[in-house]
Amino acid sequence: MEEKVIKAIQDEYPDDFAWCYGCGRLNEAGHHFRTGWEGDTTVTFYSPKPEHTALPGFVYGGLIASLIDCHGTGSAALALHRKNGIEPGDGKDAPRFVTASLNVNFLKPTPHGVTLKVVGRVEEIHPKKFKVVTEVFANDIQCASGEVVAVVMPSSFIKES
Amino acid sequence: MEEKVIKAIQDEYPDDFAWCYGCGRLNEAGHHFRTGWEGDTTVTFYSPKPEHTALPGFVYGGLIASLIDCHGTGSAALALHRKNGIEPGDGKDAPRFVTASLNVNFLKPTPHGVTLKVVGRVEEIHPKKFKVVTEVFANDIQCASGEVVAVVMPSSFIKES
Repeated sequence: MEEKVIKAIQDEYPDDFAWCYGCGRLNEAGHHFRTGWEGDTTVTFYSPKPEHTALPGFVYGGLIASLIDCHGTGSAALALHRKNGIEPGDGKDAPRFVTASLNVNFLKPTPHGVTLKVVGRVEEIHPKKFKVVTEVFANDIQCASGEVVAVVMPSSFIKES
Repeated sequence: MEEKVIKAIQDEYPDDFAWCYGCGRLNEAGHHFRTGWEGDTTVTFYSPKPEHTALPGFVYGGLIASLIDCHGTGSAALALHRKNGIEPGDGKDAPRFVTASLNVNFLKPTPHGVTLKVVGRVEEIHPKKFKVVTEVFANDIQCASGEVVAVVMPSSFIKES
């Protein structure tokens, strides 16, 4: 299993949009989730920190939800970029999506201490709205499924300054 | 607006079940969400930390999902406790729930820098399964809605040692 995303969409977000606690490369305290293509699916890998427990030995559900969330917006950005003929690494600013809805089904307890692999399939439901269907694996066993509806960031999300 | 939960269900979880990154009182690095009754609804308050941003000025969606998640399991525990005639502070161990499913709708950008108020209504759908319908407010404006289905923790969630 490849356990690292080399060309991540999060590297392509403009600096002003790179502060997400989940996936912003400029948020020093954050998780730094990285999402990229693996063929026609999108992937994110993450090794939970020692404190990310639900109970000792199992991963905290809120972290899994966060993973699915950022994986969803990142996957939507990857898909829109690819639709425009652009891949991460091409040096073009990536579009930035926000989450409209997030659904997570926790299928079984997720073991702590292994790298999680998140796999997504992206479907365009509108030129500015994408659905990302996601599966979360630990040791190749699926522990959660999720669905994100992501929309291109509206102007209301820009901080007034 | 009352901004603190005095008698929280999380104070009543047995020590072995108090390690959740979201709401475990023994997880030093965690958020320490606290959930209690306010009449017939359940409430959780939380002031996001400076790093919990989506963009500068707005709260990270994964944190909101985490809040709804732990609020849901805590609310279910409050409801089952009350059904059994027990309130937080009575000194009885609380039941521990896990999340089966989590749905979040992000209604509008959530401003950073204010205390969030999470309000829940609990419905029993089975003696061991509760649904918690949740609203998240910032400055009295609803920014997100959520639904958690929580089930009494199954034995498969206990770490084998």
